[in-house]
Amino acid sequence: MNSSDSPPAASTAPIDFESVFTSLGPHVSALDACLREQVASFEPEIRAMADYCIDTSGKRIRPSLVFLSGWRDDAVNPDLVRVAAVIELVHLATLVHDDIMDGAEIRRGRDSAARSYGPEAAVLLGDALFAHALHLAAQFPTTLVCSAVAESTRKVCAGEIIQTLRRGTTEISREDYQRVIDLKTAELFRVSCQLGSYLAGYPESFVDAAATFGRQLGIAYQIFDDLADFFGQESKIGKTLGTDLGSGKLTLPLMELADALPPAERITVIGEITGERSPHAELRLKQMRELGIFARVDQALEQELRLAEAALKPHAGCAATPRLLALTQVLRNQVAKLRVD
Amino acid sequence: MNSSDSPPAASTAPIDFESVFTSLGPHVSALDACLREQVASFEPEIRAMADYCIDTSGKRIRPSLVFLSGWRDDAVNPDLVRVAAVIELVHLATLVHDDIMDGAEIRRGRDSAARSYGPEAAVLLGDALFAHALHLAAQFPTTLVCSAVAESTRKVCAGEIIQTLRRGTTEISREDYQRVIDLKTAELFRVSCQLGSYLAGYPESFVDAAATFGRQLGIAYQIFDDLADFFGQESKIGKTLGTDLGSGKLTLPLMELADALPPAERITVIGEITGERSPHAELRLKQMRELGIFARVDQALEQELRLAEAALKPHAGCAATPRLLALTQVLRNQVAKLRVD
Repeated sequence: MNSSDSPPAASTAPIDFESVFTSLGPHVSALDACLREQVASFEPEIRAMADYCIDTSGKRIRPSLVFLSGWRDDAVNPDLVRVAAVIELVHLATLVHDDIMDGAEIRRGRDSAARSYGPEAAVLLGDALFAHALHLAAQFPTTLVCSAVAESTRKVCAGEIIQTLRRGTTEISREDYQRVIDLKTAELFRVSCQLGSYLAGYPESFVDAAATFGRQLGIAYQIFDDLADFFGQESKIGKTLGTDLGSGKLTLPLMELADALPPAERITVIGEITGERSPHAELRLKQMRELGIFARVDQALEQELRLAEAALKPHAGCAATPRLLALTQVLRNQVAKLRVD
Repeated sequence: MNSSDSPPAASTAPIDFESVFTSLGPHVSALDACLREQVASFEPEIRAMADYCIDTSGKRIRPSLVFLSGWRDDAVNPDLVRVAAVIELVHLATLVHDDIMDGAEIRRGRDSAARSYGPEAAVLLGDALFAHALHLAAQFPTTLVCSAVAESTRKVCAGEIIQTLRRGTTEISREDYQRVIDLKTAELFRVSCQLGSYLAGYPESFVDAAATFGRQLGIAYQIFDDLADFFGQESKIGKTLGTDLGSGKLTLPLMELADALPPAERITVIGEITGERSPHAELRLKQMRELGIFARVDQALEQELRLAEAALKPHAGCAATPRLLALTQVLRNQVAKLRVD
């Protein structure tokens, strides 16, 4: 029996996305070296600041997607390293700006750039990181990379703007929610898979399939993240319970809760989202548990994961396919861990 | 006598940079049409916001530099229009972010984007404008445009960051001041002239000369702008007197004033810059008039303009040269107007 015929076993799949990245061995050190090299291109006065942002030990999900969608064998492809660095720099730039807007003082266990350097410098630092990412993207012989990354970035910003403008409003449909997470999260996942497979020289049909896989995985990942905002223990994911509720952000778990509650109680939840009432995250989590909201949201998430898997079905023979498919199991493992908590 | 031998007469040069741009006739409408077209590429939910930023009736100095450095005849070159739109979009993005950082509520006589949409959305809107500029830059067949614009943008941000970090400090040399304005202002002037002449097909020696011209003109322009912060009447330039002093920004006029004042009074000025004392802009302007600071700063500005002119000297026969040289006279006219006020 050919080993590529068997689906990736749940037990062997890495437990989370951090482990996926660290399991990539030589790709990890190549990416780190490439990111470090970039710091040297910044003006001397701001190098330490750029270094501080890059040093943030993140999950590196997008670089993992680049490497895995462009997987042929263990060899490190310098084009993939460079595009992974480009996309990670764009992502880091958006984090710097997100932390300003959320007034977040902590990012992964240490001061956010906004807190370290002040919001003014952080706005500009995010801009400089983003500009440098595009400069690096322009080092490819084709303009395709620059064009794709710039367009994706605009979409990410558009998604974040729409979400920002909708804060405190409750007239949001499932489609509205889906559109925002498609733009703000799934777009960079999608472009990571598209450019990874393209630069590895895979045929167009696989590039398209990988892009669809990335997009669907990205939507599922954001649903997981929204679920974790309520069901993730603070110590484990480094977030405060129910920050989305507190900031008036209507996510799928809250939508499902509002639908499941009796009318009077629903009005109270709506008041908490619009800011007319103080948010009671603990109570809402308790109600979510009682009303089986986790399972409902998980169902929506599972549907996205199945679409991701379906996209790769015609490409079972491709070296990249089993490695990408393993990621859906990683996400299932992370969701399962939330359920236990 | 060949008319190209005579320097541009002060009386025939446009009075300011706005008139330079409006005098470009068909280029003006082509640029406007191109910028309008870009709005359509934004996600429907943010189109009105993008349109609001683009609509800002600015001086369009950078597009003028693109068109004039790439001048061959009256014909509109679509490549120049596109690169002018790219650079103007980058500039507009930096204005959106500047207004957030300065807490500026008014931009050219109407609400700033930060005030209209809130600072959170404005951070993202600036990002989206910038991302779209780079996407448009990637439409050229060569990656050179994308690369040059992205690198310039990173330099502009670096200049602004250095300036932000230095606010309220007085240990700044003339060289430090020059470096900041070189990055934050002269860089986009430089790249406008470089790309304009390059895309018009001019030889490398002229492209380099035009780039140097742009850079020196940009430095001179920023010195003029810093002079206008004190000597420009509020009604005329739409700025409050001495905002730089109020925000702890040490500019050349203030450096010259501090050097010219007796020691005791110098300490008071330093205290106003570091924020230990309330700023007295009116008094400082009065002292600047008494101590001949205008003439000293004008001398520094004139030196930059001469370097700009010298760069073009070997290219007197080029169609673009007299048109670029006319801009130094425009700036002299604007400085002369400040002196009169």
